[in-house]
Formats: sequence, C-alpha cells, structure tokens
Amino acid sequence: MKEFRKFIENYTTLSNKEWEEISACFQQRTLQKDEILLQEGDVCRHLYFIESGLLRYFIIKDGNEITKFFTEAPYCFTSQVSFTSETPAAENIQAIEKSVIYQTTLKQANDLLEFKSWNTFIRKLIQEVQYYTEEILQELQTETAEKRYRKMIEKNPSLLQRIPLQYLASFFGIAPQSLSRIRKKIAEQDRT
Amino acid sequence: MKEFRKFIENYTTLSNKEWEEISACFQQRTLQKDEILLQEGDVCRHLYFIESGLLRYFIIKDGNEITKFFTEAPYCFTSQVSFTSETPAAENIQAIEKSVIYQTTLKQANDLLEFKSWNTFIRKLIQEVQYYTEEILQELQTETAEKRYRKMIEKNPSLLQRIPLQYLASFFGIAPQSLSRIRKKIAEQDRT
Repeated sequence: MKEFRKFIENYTTLSNKEWEEISACFQQRTLQKDEILLQEGDVCRHLYFIESGLLRYFIIKDGNEITKFFTEAPYCFTSQVSFTSETPAAENIQAIEKSVIYQTTLKQANDLLEFKSWNTFIRKLIQEVQYYTEEILQELQTETAEKRYRKMIEKNPSLLQRIPLQYLASFFGIAPQSLSRIRKKIAEQDRT
Repeated sequence: MKEFRKFIENYTTLSNKEWEEISACFQQRTLQKDEILLQEGDVCRHLYFIESGLLRYFIIKDGNEITKFFTEAPYCFTSQVSFTSETPAAENIQAIEKSVIYQTTLKQANDLLEFKSWNTFIRKLIQEVQYYTEEILQELQTETAEKRYRKMIEKNPSLLQRIPLQYLASFFGIAPQSLSRIRKKIAEQDRT
C-alpha cells in the first residue's frame, strides 16, 4: 500500500499519523481480468485507488459498448456523481487486466476531509481529472481519430499494447477495422 | 454581489464574517459583448464569478475557431490549468454578451482555502465542472450533432437563443449550414 502513500505525496505532504488514519480506511481487493467492478444502474459505494492494473469506463448505447476512457495504475478513481450523491451510476467500470485496488466508503472519505492534507489531495486530484477530461474532450472536438491515435502513441505507447483493439477503436469513435487500417498505415510509414 | 453569496450557499453554508472576507477579495469588472477576457498563450491570472452574461471558451485550430463550451451566469470560471500552475493558457475566453464579472487572484483564492466553507465550495464546484465536462464528452462520444442539439433544446432552450449560429455549430462539430438544416428540420417536425 506504500504506492498509495507515494501517490498522495505527489499532491501534498503527509505526516505518519495522517497516513496511518488514511490507510486504515482502505481495504485491499483484487479484480480479475475482465471483471466488472461497477455496473450501470448500481450505486458506486466506494472511492478507489488502483495500485496495479488497468481499467476502462464504458457505457452501453443501443446495445453497443462505448469506451469513455481508461484509468491506468497508480491512480484514484470512482464513478464521481454516483459516489458523491449516492445515485445509480450512468457508466460501467471494468478491469481489463488483473488489478489490485484499495477501497473506502463515502462516509470514510468524507471524514478524512477533516485532514487538511487529504482535503488538499482530493481537491488537486479532482482538478487533475477535470484537466484530463477536458483534454480528451478537446481532442475529440478538434482532431481526427488518426491524429488522436498518433498522439497516444507518442504519449503512452506501452498503454496502447495493453488495450484490446475493440476498446481502443470505440474510445476513438471508429470501427475496429478502421483502427486496423490506421495502424497498418502508420506501421508502413514508419518502415519507409 | 449578493448573487455570488447565493451561488456559494448552494454548495456550503457561509457565516457573515466569512462572506465579508471572501467578498473583499473580489473586484467587479464589466466585459463588453465580444470582448476577449483571456487570449491563448497568456497566463490566466484570475478566478472569476460571472454574475450576468454569457461566455464561450474556444481554441484556434488551423485558423478556425472551435468552441469548447459555454459558461452562463451565475457561475465560477477560470482557465484552470493556466490559473493554478501560472502557465500560458491553451484556450480563449470571450464574452458573447455584455457581462458583469468579479475576479480574484491566485494568491487570494489560495488564502481563502483556509476557510473551511470556501474549501468545500471549491471542491464541490470542481466536482460539478468535472461532471459537466464528462457529460459533454460522453454526448460527443455517443450522440449525433442533431441529438445533441435536440437535448440542448430540452435542457436550456433560452440559452440557444442567445448564442450566434456559428458558435453553436462549432460546439456541435458541424458546419453552420448543417446546423441550419437541422433547425429547419426540427421546426418542420414541430409544425406537423
């Protein structure tokens, strides 16, 4: 669990006492590959830290799964609206690799806000998530699927290797065949 | 400025003393219609509250303006990454109506975080902004421009009347002519 402490300390400083109180609120859990952690319509009861592994958020629309985004360890995650307002989630969360996560409840997460360090951590974290979401939105508004794929190759090539083609394609808003064509084109350009 | 107090009190409770300290940190300013408040490449030095009026966020891509989203009064806004990290902004903010805003600096906004009420307000506000951004992202990932336009008619018809056609079209990712066709189609359907 020391990964989690290291993660929080990227955003704020923590005393040993604070870390003891925070870590006592989290329980470890292992997700198998392809396991659904949260199903659309259920209330998301936890705030999580993913220590190892990879998740995808998706929704089901007209019978098709549409991937919203991926969350790679180490990071904190939840289904925010569902978790904070205790209402049914409008999205699914699935482990696409075997993953080790830690979870806490809404009550515990709220109690922890009394600690200034935790409060700062949560504020900065949500700010960062907001930034990432806006970044994806802006790319979707301004770039073609091919450009977005090329950017992901630059930014996080190893992540691309870990995501099945159909999830990636739906994240880029194109058919798997189209993504295969883009991949082939890029591979040919790299060869010449 | 009592609009601002009312706005904060939607998220948290405020004592008179807290409100005095908060309001003392904000200066009023008026923006003319079409005035650019923030230009891409400049550092966003303020956190704002918009009391009346309407803004749009946009970026310039290959010489074209692409509208990211609109911010309608009353609401708080800034160019978040630029403001918190004091780096050049990657977006423009423009008043598309004459607007009355209040502004505070990063130092003052950070000092105010010492107040638990302000801290709670900021955390909940960023959560809400994150939720709105995710909502726009999800609609862009799953809906056609026509469906997105129809949703906006349902949710906020009066806002639609206030936004020039070309900004709306670029927000929906289509040409102004295409949006005109959609509008005509919907008007005809409503008539039958």
